[in-house]
Amino acid sequence: MTAFRNPIKVCFSDIDNAGIVYYPRFMHYFHLSIEEFFSKELGIDFADLLHKRNLSLPTVHVQSDFRQRVKYGDRIDVEVRILNIGRTSITWGYKGYRGSSPEELLVEGHNTTVCVRTDTFEKIEVPEWLKKALTDYEEASAQGAAQGSVS
Amino acid sequence: MTAFRNPIKVCFSDIDNAGIVYYPRFMHYFHLSIEEFFSKELGIDFADLLHKRNLSLPTVHVQSDFRQRVKYGDRIDVEVRILNIGRTSITWGYKGYRGSSPEELLVEGHNTTVCVRTDTFEKIEVPEWLKKALTDYEEASAQGAAQGSVS
Amino acid sequence: MTAFRNPIKVCFSDIDNAGIVYYPRFMHYFHLSIEEFFSKELGIDFADLLHKRNLSLPTVHVQSDFRQRVKYGDRIDVEVRILNIGRTSITWGYKGYRGSSPEELLVEGHNTTVCVRTDTFEKIEVPEWLKKALTDYEEASAQGAAQGSVS
Amino acid sequence: MTAFRNPIKVCFSDIDNAGIVYYPRFMHYFHLSIEEFFSKELGIDFADLLHKRNLSLPTVHVQSDFRQRVKYGDRIDVEVRILNIGRTSITWGYKGYRGSSPEELLVEGHNTTVCVRTDTFEKIEVPEWLKKALTDYEEASAQGAAQGSVS
Repeated sequence: MTAFRNPIKVCFSDIDNAGIVYYPRFMHYFHLSIEEFFSKELGIDFADLLHKRNLSLPTVHVQSDFRQRVKYGDRIDVEVRILNIGRTSITWGYKGYRGSSPEELLVEGHNTTVCVRTDTFEKIEVPEWLKKALTDYEEASAQGAAQGSVS
Repeated sequence: MTAFRNPIKVCFSDIDNAGIVYYPRFMHYFHLSIEEFFSKELGIDFADLLHKRNLSLPTVHVQSDFRQRVKYGDRIDVEVRILNIGRTSITWGYKGYRGSSPEELLVEGHNTTVCVRTDTFEKIEVPEWLKKALTDYEEASAQGAAQGSVS
Repeated sequence: MTAFRNPIKVCFSDIDNAGIVYYPRFMHYFHLSIEEFFSKELGIDFADLLHKRNLSLPTVHVQSDFRQRVKYGDRIDVEVRILNIGRTSITWGYKGYRGSSPEELLVEGHNTTVCVRTDTFEKIEVPEWLKKALTDYEEASAQGAAQGSVS
Repeated sequence: MTAFRNPIKVCFSDIDNAGIVYYPRFMHYFHLSIEEFFSKELGIDFADLLHKRNLSLPTVHVQSDFRQRVKYGDRIDVEVRILNIGRTSITWGYKGYRGSSPEELLVEGHNTTVCVRTDTFEKIEVPEWLKKALTDYEEASAQGAAQGSVS
């Protein structure tokens, strides 16, 4: 099983006046990808996370390296990985590959989010159900990778 | 002389569905602040930089820490500093303080930009005129700070 | 008294891949201008309107004409006018003039907003305090204009 | 043959501080949909249109009506239609339906674009190749609709 990749098409308005993707848009791509990761890989709708499960994940740290120039019409496949699950925080890793050349790394980065209640913004521990969903996902990924390596 | 601070008003559309500033917007605030820094402190219009001087400054690395929750209607004053001038790159530092409480740090970060020609995107050395403008600015700032410390 | 004008600087990221302002950004400029109109002309903070006064103003109709090409670095001064106050709706007019040439119309448009409660999104009549603030403002503007015309 | 519909997922950052889609984002959805229309229905990449075919389509007029409240997580399917082909301009119509309820109209609008050269921004007539592509598309759509009505 390979890591989850979210395909993103660079749109007209993502381009800045130097003719390339405006760099804050990459952080937006990271966010779009984590929204899709929750929905497609964990089966948890991000809107439900916020409003029904009362959990928000504000970012407290982000960093990113931009390897290649990305232009209008390019497609980026953003891989999402769970880098660390702490007591109150989760760190997510992102690698964006060129759609037309899946080994070519365009951008990479990670961000750390903390768990807070949506209604009060009070910091809380990573909820057990989320910890379970993430560790189950990681185990399935590891098994898939192991199976992949023998076949 | 205190460091340059660019006042930014958090607008309605900067807010995300968790009720706080969507974190990629802080990178946008950094960019707005550097545009103002060029115009107000160096006397170089950023549009001219791109199109008349044929110089673009794409970002190759960014990192940022988010210290406080920022909401709609808040004002952020973003301080811009020159952290390093390399052969082909410049590193810029940013500190965003609460407008209504100027000692309260809300966000900080830095990014590294490389110099490229706008027309060909070929990497070039930091142009002499830009290096001079930046070092002159730093010297004036240092003198101002020294004078400020005695008075 | 001349109509309220909100100065907006076209920023780097407002520009699209054709080298001009991405047209949905003009609607964003309209919105920024109405936020400033509330704050500066009516003395009502837009964030307070939403959260303390429990009033939201979703748009049900918008139209706009784009007269001139607008580029990075241009300044647009957006005039805001009250075109109509209905039972549950208000129509706002906008004219954007070139900052460096205040008679040159760049963009114009209007939108109709309805009054709803922020918490339930239930449609309500224009609150009396808002109707009063708007009509007082219009009378002051009309008087100012009349005085302006004799002087 | 039914009209082309482009599925759009309302993302986290499209939502404003009143909890609904920030209305300028609908114009962005219209633009995304026309980019997809060119690529999927006409076989013309929008980036190529701009840069290889040297054709830009700036908007000179837009109007839109917002029928329903749209929230985070909703999907909108945006139908694109050619409303008019003039000498130098094209008018495009948009209808956005709820993804989960394809008859429910959420938003509708139209915009008029003029043809200009990307390099000089000189206004030109609608190029013959584009006029042909659009009329061929319309004929195929009409035939498809006619066939659909008998079956």
